Amino acid sequence: MTKPIIALYQDLKDEHKEAIQSLMVDYQVKDFSQITSSEIAEIEVLLGWNHDWTEADFEQMTSLKWLQNSSAGMDSLPDEVKQSSRILLSNMSGIHGDSIAQNVFAYLLSTYRGMYQALSDQQEHYWNQSYMDDLMQINDKTMLLFGTGSLSQRIAEIAQVFGMNVVGVNTDGRSVKHYDQTVATEKAGAVIAEADMIVNTMPSTTTTRGLFDGDFFEKMNHEALFINVGRGDAVVEEDLIDALENETIAGAYLDVFQEEPLPADHPLWTAKHLVMTPHTSGVVEHFRDAVFNVFYENLKQYQQDGTLAKNQFNVKKDY
Amino acid sequence: MTKPIIALYQDLKDEHKEAIQSLMVDYQVKDFSQITSSEIAEIEVLLGWNHDWTEADFEQMTSLKWLQNSSAGMDSLPDEVKQSSRILLSNMSGIHGDSIAQNVFAYLLSTYRGMYQALSDQQEHYWNQSYMDDLMQINDKTMLLFGTGSLSQRIAEIAQVFGMNVVGVNTDGRSVKHYDQTVATEKAGAVIAEADMIVNTMPSTTTTRGLFDGDFFEKMNHEALFINVGRGDAVVEEDLIDALENETIAGAYLDVFQEEPLPADHPLWTAKHLVMTPHTSGVVEHFRDAVFNVFYENLKQYQQDGTLAKNQFNVKKDY
Repeated sequence: MTKPIIALYQDLKDEHKEAIQSLMVDYQVKDFSQITSSEIAEIEVLLGWNHDWTEADFEQMTSLKWLQNSSAGMDSLPDEVKQSSRILLSNMSGIHGDSIAQNVFAYLLSTYRGMYQALSDQQEHYWNQSYMDDLMQINDKTMLLFGTGSLSQRIAEIAQVFGMNVVGVNTDGRSVKHYDQTVATEKAGAVIAEADMIVNTMPSTTTTRGLFDGDFFEKMNHEALFINVGRGDAVVEEDLIDALENETIAGAYLDVFQEEPLPADHPLWTAKHLVMTPHTSGVVEHFRDAVFNVFYENLKQYQQDGTLAKNQFNVKKDY
Repeated sequence: MTKPIIALYQDLKDEHKEAIQSLMVDYQVKDFSQITSSEIAEIEVLLGWNHDWTEADFEQMTSLKWLQNSSAGMDSLPDEVKQSSRILLSNMSGIHGDSIAQNVFAYLLSTYRGMYQALSDQQEHYWNQSYMDDLMQINDKTMLLFGTGSLSQRIAEIAQVFGMNVVGVNTDGRSVKHYDQTVATEKAGAVIAEADMIVNTMPSTTTTRGLFDGDFFEKMNHEALFINVGRGDAVVEEDLIDALENETIAGAYLDVFQEEPLPADHPLWTAKHLVMTPHTSGVVEHFRDAVFNVFYENLKQYQQDGTLAKNQFNVKKDY
C-alpha cells in the first residue's frame, strides 16, 4: 500500500519540506507539480491550490481530508468544497497582520506628522515650516477598527502603545484584548463621530459589502481619516471620492479596490487627500517561512488527533 | 513685603495660570511681558527665557532660584548662569518624545513598506506591483539607538511592540527599560554592523559632534538606514551624502542640520535615498499643555522642599 501524500501547491523551502517529512514519516511529501494524475487520489493533505480550479478538480482528490490555504481569503474555493463535511479547511489568516499594520501606521504617521508635505517641499528645495501649527500626533486620538480579528488586534496592540484610545466593532460587542472598548455592529453608528480614524479590516461578507458609503462618511468627523485594508467591495468608491472632494472627511488610504488592477482612467487616481497602495499591504517578507509556521503547527495537531490547531475556516461565518 | 514672582516668559493657557496661582498662594504669577523693571529683582521662578539674553540680563534677577526651560536644549543659556550654584536649572526634555518617535516610525515604515514608491506611482496613475519582492517589515529587524534618554526610550518602547530587537548605546552600557541590550559607547563599534537601522537621539556635546562620519557609515550594513533626530552637528553631512551616493548605506532621514534653514543650494537637497523634514519632528501638538505638565510637577516638588521632581539640568554632562 502506498503512503498517503502531503501535496505542496504552495512552494516551500527545502528545510521546510524536510521538517514536514521528519514529522510525518508515514506520508510522502511532494510538490504538487511532481504529482502524477494517478497520485491525485492519494492526496490527503493539500497546502495551497490553483484559484482557477473548479469543483471537478477537487472531486478527483478522493482521499483529501485537509485543505490548508496559503492566503487569508477563501473566496476562490468552490462552494461544494467549502461545504463538504469530509474536508477540513483552514486559511492563512494572521500572517499578514504585521505587514498590513505597518502600512496602516506608515500612512497615519506620515499624514499626522506632515511627512507627505515635507517630501513635496524637498523636491522643490524648499525649507517650509509654515504648516507647523497643523502638525498632529496620534497619541490621545481615537481609532475605530471595524473587525476585531487577528489583523485588527495587531493594529490595536500597536495603537495602544502609541497612546491611542482604541475601539473595536464586532458582531456582538464582545470584549477583545488590546481594545479600550468594543461595540456591537448595530451600535457602531453611535461611535463613528468620535473617531479620529476609522480602519476597515473585515473580510468580504454579505453584511460588509458597500458598508462604507455616503451615509457612513457623513457620520464621520470632518477631521477624521478613513482606511481600508479589508476588502475592496466594502467601500462605495464614488461616495468616498465625493466625501474627499467635499471635505466631509479629511483623508483616506486604500490598499484594496473594487476592480484590480485599478484602471488608469479611474477617478480614484486623482481624488484629493487620498493615498493608495496597489494591494501590497499584505505582502509578507519571508512569506514561505510564515506559511510554513502556520502549516507546521496545524500539521502537528492533525497528526495527533486529526484536528487543526488554528485558522480553521468557519463556513457559516464565511471567514 | 511683596510676594515673590513666578514669571512666565513661555505663554500658558489661562487655566494653567490659575492652577499655578492656586498651588502657590504666597506668590504672584505674572506673564513676563507684564513685569516692570523694578519687579525683575522679585522673580524667584522663571519659565522660559529669551534666547538672546546675556549674562547681564540674568544678573538683574537677584532673587532667581529656579529657571525652567520651555525647550529641551540648554545651549543658549550663558555659561555663567549654567554654572551658578544659586540657580536650579531644568529643561523640557521628554515632551518631544511622542512627536519625534512618530516621525521616526513614519519614515521607517514608509521606506520598508514601499509607500514612497507607491506615492510616486500614484501621481502617474500607475498600478505598479513590480517591487513587491523588495517590501520589508520592521519586525525582527535590529534598531540601534545612540542615546538612551527619554526620547530614545519612547522610540525603543514602540519598536519592541512592532517586534524589533532594540539595542541602546549609552556612556557606561547600563541597562535601561525597553532595550533588549545596551552597550557602552566605546564598545558601540562592535554592534554597528548588526543594525538594520541606526537612530541618533543624542544632545550636542563634545563627544557627539561629528560622530557620524565616513568611518562610521563604512561600518554600517549596506542595507541599513541612518536617522538623525538628535542634533545637526552630530553628522558630517558631506560624508553622509557620499555614503548615500555610493550606496554604502541604503537610506537616511534627517530632521536636523548643521545649518538651518538648509540653504536652497545645499547638496543634501538632491542626495539619493534621503528623506528630510525641516526640524519639525519635535513640534508638539498641544505644546502649552505639555510644558505646563512638566512645570507644574516640578512646581509641586519645589513648593515642598525646594528641589525639582524631574528634568534637572546636569552641567557636567551638559544635558
